[in-house]
Amino acid sequence: MAENAEQEPKVENSTPAKEMRAIRLAGFGGIKMLKVQNVSETTPADGEVLIRVKAVGVNFADLMVRQGAIDNPPKTPFTMGSECSGEVEALGENVEGFQVGDRVIAVTDFHSWAELVAVPTARVFKMPTGMNYHDGAAFFMSYVTAYIMLFDIGNFREGQSVLIHSAGGGVGQALCQLSKNVTDATLFGTASANKHEAIKAKLTHLYDHSADYVQEIKKESPEGVDIVLDCLCGEDTNRGISILKPLGKYILYGSSNVVTGETKSFFSFAKSWWQVDKISPIKLYDENKCISGFNLRQLLFKQNQSSCIKRVVEKLFSLYNEGKIKPVIDSTWAFEDVGEAMQIMHDRKNVGKIVLDPAMEPKPKEEAAPAAATTDAASAGSGEEAEKAN
Amino acid sequence: MAENAEQEPKVENSTPAKEMRAIRLAGFGGIKMLKVQNVSETTPADGEVLIRVKAVGVNFADLMVRQGAIDNPPKTPFTMGSECSGEVEALGENVEGFQVGDRVIAVTDFHSWAELVAVPTARVFKMPTGMNYHDGAAFFMSYVTAYIMLFDIGNFREGQSVLIHSAGGGVGQALCQLSKNVTDATLFGTASANKHEAIKAKLTHLYDHSADYVQEIKKESPEGVDIVLDCLCGEDTNRGISILKPLGKYILYGSSNVVTGETKSFFSFAKSWWQVDKISPIKLYDENKCISGFNLRQLLFKQNQSSCIKRVVEKLFSLYNEGKIKPVIDSTWAFEDVGEAMQIMHDRKNVGKIVLDPAMEPKPKEEAAPAAATTDAASAGSGEEAEKAN
Repeated sequence: MAENAEQEPKVENSTPAKEMRAIRLAGFGGIKMLKVQNVSETTPADGEVLIRVKAVGVNFADLMVRQGAIDNPPKTPFTMGSECSGEVEALGENVEGFQVGDRVIAVTDFHSWAELVAVPTARVFKMPTGMNYHDGAAFFMSYVTAYIMLFDIGNFREGQSVLIHSAGGGVGQALCQLSKNVTDATLFGTASANKHEAIKAKLTHLYDHSADYVQEIKKESPEGVDIVLDCLCGEDTNRGISILKPLGKYILYGSSNVVTGETKSFFSFAKSWWQVDKISPIKLYDENKCISGFNLRQLLFKQNQSSCIKRVVEKLFSLYNEGKIKPVIDSTWAFEDVGEAMQIMHDRKNVGKIVLDPAMEPKPKEEAAPAAATTDAASAGSGEEAEKAN
Repeated sequence: MAENAEQEPKVENSTPAKEMRAIRLAGFGGIKMLKVQNVSETTPADGEVLIRVKAVGVNFADLMVRQGAIDNPPKTPFTMGSECSGEVEALGENVEGFQVGDRVIAVTDFHSWAELVAVPTARVFKMPTGMNYHDGAAFFMSYVTAYIMLFDIGNFREGQSVLIHSAGGGVGQALCQLSKNVTDATLFGTASANKHEAIKAKLTHLYDHSADYVQEIKKESPEGVDIVLDCLCGEDTNRGISILKPLGKYILYGSSNVVTGETKSFFSFAKSWWQVDKISPIKLYDENKCISGFNLRQLLFKQNQSSCIKRVVEKLFSLYNEGKIKPVIDSTWAFEDVGEAMQIMHDRKNVGKIVLDPAMEPKPKEEAAPAAATTDAASAGSGEEAEKAN
């Protein structure tokens, strides 16, 4: 766990005053491990602002966190979530540049799927005036990831081509929008067949994940592509590197091939790892190729690159204000329906981002859960039994 | 040898008419393998221009070619050289955009160290009006390499830092000049101690090659550097990758550590190869790092990236015309003194580029060579016996 991890709210069973709802992970595993529970309200520490959360974003990485499929996960139980939008409710000591009432987005080292979250100011950004809270919650992780990869690492320029995997996802849709702003860009994409109708107009060429996309791309562009953005890993890493043009750049930024079922699979872990070939820099010299990795979580919480992030967010807010980018939101859900929302991502059905809104009413459940467990019934939406936190 | 290798001139022993001088490599090995010989004049093929050579550039890569320390070298004997400046003397069939009398620089797949060279138009560029032939011969390889690495691969930007190895060499000096045009750039460099006085003003921090430069750089910048440009290879590859900042880029573009003596050493080859760690893209993902290789020869002669090269040359000529870059020339030599010129590079003594001029008179030799062997006495300058080509 990072040194500067946000403050973990405590589960309160005694005093009902000063409580807030939070989406807690009872233990690593399937969707039913997620519980909406009352915990004691967070307070802002030195240098932190307290945010009244209006909406939170769900990222594919949250599926991996839930499964325990990340390095050094926090101990369960804990409140999940890495991004939110909201209103500043209170200021900790020594906070400058923020006022109570500011509309902000924030990025957190877990703990943001709650009604209140305290965040160090370096990771809080005032929202553009015209941005609503749902867009705000869907903004940071997708667009910052997409921007840094395309422009800081990839140096994506006029006339170049890019391969976007999972083009229908949150980052995929952000990549499509940002790439479209590049003159004469060619956008190759892969996505599950069920999403093609919804997104095909946003790309130049769209293929099924399971197709031999390397051959298809080579038919269109025998030289290959300039930038490959890979969130799949495993065998797709080698394919991505093989399809690079001279001076092309391969960027690994996720490993969704590891998530094959609802719970962590050591087999898919091991398979994905072993499928990725190690590479000598001397081979890259022979071939004029570039390989790199991008891990926003490391950058934010281990490597503390605040000034880099600040520059990127400012640039993205300008593009938003100019109407050049706008989050694509697949659907919005109540905290209590987080299980159903996550199941859509497991099934690779979402187009754009899944957002949770703590003010929304949960969907009526077909089988009524026991009255006492209402706020615990995170997984009821997907038809699973509600379960108490440990 | 590349398919589109330039036409190889033939050694002529019979007709003295239509002959030209060329620097030939009799066999892979030491400096005495270089011979100035008369060969039959080159003629331009379809799509080629014939250039009357005014000056040629010597690159570190030529030392490796001479030793046979490159992949798929041509069969000896052959005329060496990869870049020249000169005047267009004749046009082949189907040549557009060039006229007899044009002042040009050209890049070739060997064969440019001669009085005449025929080059496909895709690799011939009209020189800026104010550029002299010596500058022209010193321009292409150094500046195109430096520009693509810094700006196309490295995406070098305001406030960033770069580590330049062999900062006193031709590419090193081009890198210094191009980096200085970036606002608030920090230039770390390494060079042999004997060059420090001449070049220290061009860098922010300069270290000896043999010093523990990683520790020295970390004292100045604990986070590391944004871009590492490595022409050394071997253990310096691992060091370069270790010293990268988050989102930093390591670029391998040469392996001068392989050249330890005058002739090819399998030991230094093997050592350099084994010292370079293979890397998993998953490790780069964990660390937010980027590794790449740049090989201009591959790009020019195997990968045929003419439009990329054209764009870069145009940009560089603009910078030259604006007075922002100008080749640093260490010294200029007659063709016959190529051995002495190369010895300077072996000894890592040159600051900037070594240029050969076919019109220059050879230096008087201390021990007069036999009269008949005058034009063969390429190595006489370094005190070695002249030797006939095989």
